[in-house]
Amino acid sequence: MKIALVGVGLIGGSFVLGLKRTMPHLQVVGIDQNAENLIQAKALGIIDSSDTLEHAVQTTDCTILAVPVDAIVHLLPRVLDLANADHTVIDFGSTKAAICGSVKDHAKRACFIAAHPIAGTEYSGPKAAFAELFDNKVMITCEEELSGKQQLALYHQCCASMQMQMRSMDPKSHDLHLAFVSHLSHISSFALGKTVLKKEESEQHIFDMAGSGFASTVRLAKSSPEMWGPIFKHNKENLLDGLNTYIQELERFKALLTSMDEEAMLAYMKEANKIREIVDRIA
Amino acid sequence: MKIALVGVGLIGGSFVLGLKRTMPHLQVVGIDQNAENLIQAKALGIIDSSDTLEHAVQTTDCTILAVPVDAIVHLLPRVLDLANADHTVIDFGSTKAAICGSVKDHAKRACFIAAHPIAGTEYSGPKAAFAELFDNKVMITCEEELSGKQQLALYHQCCASMQMQMRSMDPKSHDLHLAFVSHLSHISSFALGKTVLKKEESEQHIFDMAGSGFASTVRLAKSSPEMWGPIFKHNKENLLDGLNTYIQELERFKALLTSMDEEAMLAYMKEANKIREIVDRIA
Repeated sequence: MKIALVGVGLIGGSFVLGLKRTMPHLQVVGIDQNAENLIQAKALGIIDSSDTLEHAVQTTDCTILAVPVDAIVHLLPRVLDLANADHTVIDFGSTKAAICGSVKDHAKRACFIAAHPIAGTEYSGPKAAFAELFDNKVMITCEEELSGKQQLALYHQCCASMQMQMRSMDPKSHDLHLAFVSHLSHISSFALGKTVLKKEESEQHIFDMAGSGFASTVRLAKSSPEMWGPIFKHNKENLLDGLNTYIQELERFKALLTSMDEEAMLAYMKEANKIREIVDRIA
Repeated sequence: MKIALVGVGLIGGSFVLGLKRTMPHLQVVGIDQNAENLIQAKALGIIDSSDTLEHAVQTTDCTILAVPVDAIVHLLPRVLDLANADHTVIDFGSTKAAICGSVKDHAKRACFIAAHPIAGTEYSGPKAAFAELFDNKVMITCEEELSGKQQLALYHQCCASMQMQMRSMDPKSHDLHLAFVSHLSHISSFALGKTVLKKEESEQHIFDMAGSGFASTVRLAKSSPEMWGPIFKHNKENLLDGLNTYIQELERFKALLTSMDEEAMLAYMKEANKIREIVDRIA
């Protein structure tokens, strides 16, 4: 099999490194705006060669789009235009409604599979990629009924090789739920990072006093702005809803602290403790 | 040496387990309101026996107070009343101004050392304790100049045995900075846990889609309400200041998202990325 990998960073790089463990003859052609990334990806064994998008789509079996979501919306119709009817196109975008919408009337819609692998780290680029990232992780597929049989067979074979847990979901539900269980976490972390930097900018040594709890909460503030900006844009309405609820919850805690209603504060925290069973299931 | 350990949970338990590695003859007498905790602590080798507070203080060299901060404020003057002039009393509270204030005019103030070891996990109780928790971690001491020479010698010997990194700080600065680099993280996490549970309560299976980023951000929402309620109470003014700034930062991001000011959103996230060097130093 020959794959055209558009975007040779953490997500795309980890996916093909994962595949290469059980598909030793897999050939990966890299496409990336950043020439330095292509050089690194080659050196790291992520890609075997690089090419133009046009030529790569026409000379491979499958194209994987692992770039920021606005770039996917831009590239996907073009890739489908170039693809022959046997080709498989898979995107790994973290929002799905706008991406699915961009090709809903495309003549070659059946060539496309809308996918979202639930894994990542706060790092980015080819050097951040590693073969085990997607092992046993959840893979969400949207509008599977619109994808072709042959395309789905290839896709499921790839996912099965990493024991990924397959879930189906419509694009709107996907974006709504991801707003709460992923995207909002990133905003809360970016804002916390900003808050603390603002307050502590004159006394950097103070961070000696920050422990692992702080590190855990602001970890996502290290995430790539270039990747997350477009995600927030695509998921704007759900995120505004999430942000409003989150700010209300913070305001409520602030009110309890201001009036020093200790019993209500305790009840608030005990309610939040219920997240335990969910988090323990993830970790 | 013989230590009276008041509170045989994560913090106190880990500290004496840490000490026992290099002080095999150390005897630890446990004092805890919760009888089950005493049984567990004995079984786990944290304590060697249990006793009443009064008798334990009068028959040991050192009393460690590792209980919620409101309990420390309540117990500390009483423990100093009971202590003889050679005794060392150390508290491990996460706020320091109210605790130091509670004994500032006590005749035996020199017996007391106000300490805050910067380490912990989201778990609590004797079973959560482990010997390595404080290895190489920061230990903050407040008002060291008010503690006696003999007491400081014993304290520094204990901390040195775990290679703890010693810092000095006045109680007000301590509480101000900890509000930002620790306490605020907990509130942000409790509120995020509440937000997500509220939105997703009818669809628990949705949490399949939550990844490690979400887990990291809400991890602290699992923390003990009984321990954190009193910390928030003690540090109310600094935390209200922190919460206001945090809510302002979230409101600012919300405004940028609403008006879809992509450049400003990018700048906001790049600013937050500066937390990277700080977090990498902690981890």
